[in-house]
Amino acid sequence: MKARMENYVRDLQNKICNALEQVDGKAKFIEDTWERPGGGGGWSRVIENGNVIEKGGVNVSVVHGEMPQLMQKKFGVEGASFYATGISLVIHPKNPHCPTSHANWRYFEMYNQDGEKMDAWFGGGLDMTPYYVNEQDCKHWHLTCKAACDQHGEQLYPEYKKWCDEYFHNHHRGEARGIGGLFYDYLREGDKEKTHEEWFAFQQEIGNSFINAYIPILEKNKEIPFTEKEKYWQEIRRGRYVEFNLIHDRGTLFGLKTNGRIESILMSLPPTVRWDYMFEPAGDKEQALIDLLTSPKEWVD
Amino acid sequence: MKARMENYVRDLQNKICNALEQVDGKAKFIEDTWERPGGGGGWSRVIENGNVIEKGGVNVSVVHGEMPQLMQKKFGVEGASFYATGISLVIHPKNPHCPTSHANWRYFEMYNQDGEKMDAWFGGGLDMTPYYVNEQDCKHWHLTCKAACDQHGEQLYPEYKKWCDEYFHNHHRGEARGIGGLFYDYLREGDKEKTHEEWFAFQQEIGNSFINAYIPILEKNKEIPFTEKEKYWQEIRRGRYVEFNLIHDRGTLFGLKTNGRIESILMSLPPTVRWDYMFEPAGDKEQALIDLLTSPKEWVD
Repeated sequence: MKARMENYVRDLQNKICNALEQVDGKAKFIEDTWERPGGGGGWSRVIENGNVIEKGGVNVSVVHGEMPQLMQKKFGVEGASFYATGISLVIHPKNPHCPTSHANWRYFEMYNQDGEKMDAWFGGGLDMTPYYVNEQDCKHWHLTCKAACDQHGEQLYPEYKKWCDEYFHNHHRGEARGIGGLFYDYLREGDKEKTHEEWFAFQQEIGNSFINAYIPILEKNKEIPFTEKEKYWQEIRRGRYVEFNLIHDRGTLFGLKTNGRIESILMSLPPTVRWDYMFEPAGDKEQALIDLLTSPKEWVD
Repeated sequence: MKARMENYVRDLQNKICNALEQVDGKAKFIEDTWERPGGGGGWSRVIENGNVIEKGGVNVSVVHGEMPQLMQKKFGVEGASFYATGISLVIHPKNPHCPTSHANWRYFEMYNQDGEKMDAWFGGGLDMTPYYVNEQDCKHWHLTCKAACDQHGEQLYPEYKKWCDEYFHNHHRGEARGIGGLFYDYLREGDKEKTHEEWFAFQQEIGNSFINAYIPILEKNKEIPFTEKEKYWQEIRRGRYVEFNLIHDRGTLFGLKTNGRIESILMSLPPTVRWDYMFEPAGDKEQALIDLLTSPKEWVD
């Protein structure tokens, strides 16, 4: 499974980068490979200053070694080691009418002190963070998520949509990071009567759905003219994105705790960001976003 | 002591705000008062878009109530309550040749479940984060810190200077946040054979030294012309400031965990910030800062 998941995420990295370069039409991804001192490494691909994408990264990593002490404590194990592979992406478009998107698909194995496999699971998801609300785009995003889930059971979308809303929440602000999508973790052999193999199929289904979920939204909005005020609003909202990633995000903290490559982990941070004291939404369109983020809604019947 | 410390920090808030308004010559502090749902409140004063100060805050708070669970665990107590008062300030100048400064002076009391005082201590310090290294300014800053400490014992400056270097460290980057200054905490009756009263005198000495430490540095550098490249560098380095405050800073986390007022806590974040992937210092002057932050030095013989 380790080799199959590694192949899958590297292949998906190629496909997603190609699709994003096409929609951008100017900038290209640049790849850096890196090695992790404790074991493993990764392939980071970053795109900057494009026509459409101001900054984005699509990273693959394969890391293994001793489990960080805090994680061992969490799982109630001692002398454990781990293996993790995954793909993680964040795209920050230039145009405030294009939403930011994030996705991650990962596979994790845990071993006891004798190196025997104790546990293995899949986790992942995708979520979107608009600066202006476009109902049609939000519906398209969630319908694509639902269609992919439904192939593997109709109970999955509602459960993982809810988990996503709960996870990507800026608790200190009392608002959602964005309009959500899917989030799932600890998908193990036997859960919901599915085999490990079936969860791998589910994982690939969701991974493959990203391009269909996101690219049409970029295509549709990338040419909309925007004002300085709208750009300012985007930069203020990007501040909330930074707050979530540095204060609450488990993925970021996992990376920092496992001596991941800092520049790859923090490629998720937006290129230009503002924090004004007591910033107030300038108008109705800005207020509509706040209203939406403070009361999550159902996008699909 | 609670009332005396409250009076002291409110008076110091006035003095520091006046001194900063004078050096700025244009912008004025705006005060917001707020109440904390669990008990207490504060006076936040923020200044924005000045001639010299791009964004800054000088906040006083007096909060009390049930101790957050995580803190109770840390101190090994149950059913405890707390009282805390303090002044906290962060100044982000517009000109990259002017350093950012931060300071905080606080007094904390802890009570058992019967409301009896179990513990009381002072904490605080001041530290500076330059974007370009000016040796003379760094020396002035540290000499002012040392002179204030020395009034209360010659062992204090070296110890609290070291603590500051250790505390304001961006571990995930392997570099200091700035050139440090002083940091101290848990100064209790009997520590270093000093009474509670003597620590209060020390606390005031350090608080009173801030204006002399910082204002001359602003005055000296505020008119130096700067380029777009230098501003860009400042915004990149401000990103490190955000990383420290949201990932490592105990003060920020304490505020978030005790339901402090979010806009007052996060007034510490800089107004405009950049994150570029793999940003490289553009020249020798930028590299000199990195060299300094990766190997802390002694500024005073």
